[in-house]
Amino acid sequence: MDLTKHTISTLSELMGKKEVSPVEVVEAALNRVEEIDGRTKAFVTLCEKEARQAAQQAEKDIAAGNHKGPLHGIPLGIKDIYYTEGVLTTGSSKVFKDFVPDYDATTVKKLKEAGAIILGKTNTHEFAFGVITPPTRNPWDLERIPGGSSGGTGAAVATAMCMGGTGSDTGGSIRIPSSLNGIVGIKPTFGRTSKYGVIPLSWSLDHTGPMCRSVRDAAFMLEAMAGFDAKDPYTVDLPVPHYAGGLEEGTAGLRLGVPTDYFSEPVDPQVGAAVEKAVDVLRGMVASVEEVSFPHIQAAPVAELFVLCPEASSYHDKYLPEHEGDYTPDVLAYLKMGYLMLGVHHVKAQRYRKLLRGDFEAAFKNVDAIVTPTLPVTAPKAGEDFIKVGEEDLQITRLLTRNMVPYNLTGLPAITLPCGFDSDGLPIGLQIAGRAFDESTIFRLAHAYESATDWMKTPPL
Amino acid sequence: MDLTKHTISTLSELMGKKEVSPVEVVEAALNRVEEIDGRTKAFVTLCEKEARQAAQQAEKDIAAGNHKGPLHGIPLGIKDIYYTEGVLTTGSSKVFKDFVPDYDATTVKKLKEAGAIILGKTNTHEFAFGVITPPTRNPWDLERIPGGSSGGTGAAVATAMCMGGTGSDTGGSIRIPSSLNGIVGIKPTFGRTSKYGVIPLSWSLDHTGPMCRSVRDAAFMLEAMAGFDAKDPYTVDLPVPHYAGGLEEGTAGLRLGVPTDYFSEPVDPQVGAAVEKAVDVLRGMVASVEEVSFPHIQAAPVAELFVLCPEASSYHDKYLPEHEGDYTPDVLAYLKMGYLMLGVHHVKAQRYRKLLRGDFEAAFKNVDAIVTPTLPVTAPKAGEDFIKVGEEDLQITRLLTRNMVPYNLTGLPAITLPCGFDSDGLPIGLQIAGRAFDESTIFRLAHAYESATDWMKTPPL
Repeated sequence: MDLTKHTISTLSELMGKKEVSPVEVVEAALNRVEEIDGRTKAFVTLCEKEARQAAQQAEKDIAAGNHKGPLHGIPLGIKDIYYTEGVLTTGSSKVFKDFVPDYDATTVKKLKEAGAIILGKTNTHEFAFGVITPPTRNPWDLERIPGGSSGGTGAAVATAMCMGGTGSDTGGSIRIPSSLNGIVGIKPTFGRTSKYGVIPLSWSLDHTGPMCRSVRDAAFMLEAMAGFDAKDPYTVDLPVPHYAGGLEEGTAGLRLGVPTDYFSEPVDPQVGAAVEKAVDVLRGMVASVEEVSFPHIQAAPVAELFVLCPEASSYHDKYLPEHEGDYTPDVLAYLKMGYLMLGVHHVKAQRYRKLLRGDFEAAFKNVDAIVTPTLPVTAPKAGEDFIKVGEEDLQITRLLTRNMVPYNLTGLPAITLPCGFDSDGLPIGLQIAGRAFDESTIFRLAHAYESATDWMKTPPL
Repeated sequence: MDLTKHTISTLSELMGKKEVSPVEVVEAALNRVEEIDGRTKAFVTLCEKEARQAAQQAEKDIAAGNHKGPLHGIPLGIKDIYYTEGVLTTGSSKVFKDFVPDYDATTVKKLKEAGAIILGKTNTHEFAFGVITPPTRNPWDLERIPGGSSGGTGAAVATAMCMGGTGSDTGGSIRIPSSLNGIVGIKPTFGRTSKYGVIPLSWSLDHTGPMCRSVRDAAFMLEAMAGFDAKDPYTVDLPVPHYAGGLEEGTAGLRLGVPTDYFSEPVDPQVGAAVEKAVDVLRGMVASVEEVSFPHIQAAPVAELFVLCPEASSYHDKYLPEHEGDYTPDVLAYLKMGYLMLGVHHVKAQRYRKLLRGDFEAAFKNVDAIVTPTLPVTAPKAGEDFIKVGEEDLQITRLLTRNMVPYNLTGLPAITLPCGFDSDGLPIGLQIAGRAFDESTIFRLAHAYESATDWMKTPPL
């Protein structure tokens, strides 16, 4: 069967009707990995045996009338910083090269309970600390990066090697690879999903979330992953909405905000044009489109670094003395930078978050969602450190994280979905952000836009 | 009239019956300041004119049948880090020597709305950063320190120059001077009282609260000060109980915890004996007394410093360049230490707080309150840096903050009240701590103990 023609939603419907079996789907997924992944290098560990066993069990369960729901029998890719019981979990680092956890991350456990099948572990930029994710390549152009840090999930889902996957997002690591690979990814509200059993990068900025081939699929996956977890003190004990059930509830009453500052400074002209067109499409679906601005936002990238680096170095403190030579040079450089940052500056950066959150709370008094380009550019070429936007050569990491970090610092939910392609055939992403714990509204808007357009494609690999 | 024979409770009853006038009380308080404060140096600014005006207004209001409640017409001392509209607020520092705020701290505003009269501003260790509070002296022995940082309020309330006052507590600054001066002080739960308009020392450790001449008085004052404040993002939107109304609700069902570790390492033998006696008294009033212990507690003092100092330096960052010479040497040394501390260590100290909070939450599954010595010693002599406990010479600041900081790091409420005197006639304090936002239980226990004993005395000055 041809998985590229499917989403979780369409497959699960067919499985429910017993027109397709989980065994078929998993075999098709494994075939596709065999066929493609030598080039994309999205997976670091395949769970062939376990996946086949799980597929047979799912087939039996469904045949016996016990269809657990939309994720039952669906093959997923799990980012290699998520603990998976009995399966290597390396964080794509030599430091953890032999680590096999004896339990699942809470979100992995929840996905399994929903019937999902773990096809394998996907490559991450080492310890989720970067946006390049070597050696994974972008399936839209193998000379280009998939973004990161969840680049493996991005490439695997875009090519339908699996139907969805997990990412984590500290400074854009779900949304960057989702945008660059032309798929849907959501960073939920801080506290909505558990981080228990996920190798931390920065406790106060990390988020877990899904990456999928449609908005509906992301709604299914987030609903399965979300919820209070006594093992993660950051999770919030709020009911988890039935996100997919609300997708059709209509957008006519919503007010949309478009920032006048920061998010398009700079932006590639083709990306800017695609996002403007997307806003025009949305304009026809909502009550109003209004300008919003954020007085304190310019400090966001610096604050992000001063929060993130000391937290990351604090975690890696126990590994660095023995393993300094096992880290890649770029991650080691960040960790060393984390040791140079003073407590005073970390404190100021943490306090800045309240100011920025205040800016967004003020904006959300007048609008229900905020629309921006996900990234200022499409996928950069591998091996390049700088990319030209207009007249300026800009550092890639700074550029790709720029529109991301305001939502890590504030913890507000943000989704990205495809909104076009540039003249090189590379996908462009649209970011829609919402109020705290109001993922429902951004899912609804994203679904309405997705239904009115049709930008989800599969790269011709 | 003789204020030393009174509390807020007894005075307010007499005022309600119009047997005593607020004008009389304020005059008596001002006379007492005149008589004593040349020796104790508790006040840094007196508000004679404003206090007299307020007293006359209170007299009129009460005469007209508008008695606002227990604080109406009661003279209070306000620690000099609390903003007071139109009144010098120096933090007892040259840096702020001319600062006159144009608004009241939220808690001051609330006390005024409850009818309280601001008699003056009390001395604090500079910017609340220390336990000595020069030049204030301890009214039980003028050669000794009153403790700090709310040493001015401690000495003023102990001598009945005012009937109650405000303190603030970052590492014991309410409880230390309350214990050393033989009065009642409560550090409420973090988030229970607003800090808006109080010069910060360390945002994540600071607490505001009352210091009084009886448990009932502290209940009256905390009820007036407490509650959600939109201007303080740390306050929690929970209803404020009528604390005084619950004082007699009985203690027979309560389970008391007595720590086996940390809180009596070390303790002066006379202090230890007085606290043991107090526990014996309490044993007769409760359901059970059980041992509790805290596996992670030994790191508390170090964690406190690594949280506090970078936060303090971060706040003073804007004053230090211009005002370095205006700080006292000990505070300047702490602020410079704050600049040396790395972000990594601050992060680790902040994360340690979750571990410690876990220890206490575990203990509070089995007990309703935890009883310890407030301090390991009674008031040290002024000018001494070390004090002998058993065979060891111990640094005074470390010693006085030791039993305090676990409750600043965890944010749990803790009250201190007198439980005896040592052979030098110096007061000994008993600390009772409770669950988050359960000040009611510790008020109830403290009131039962206070009623069964009678350790509240006024120093013979």
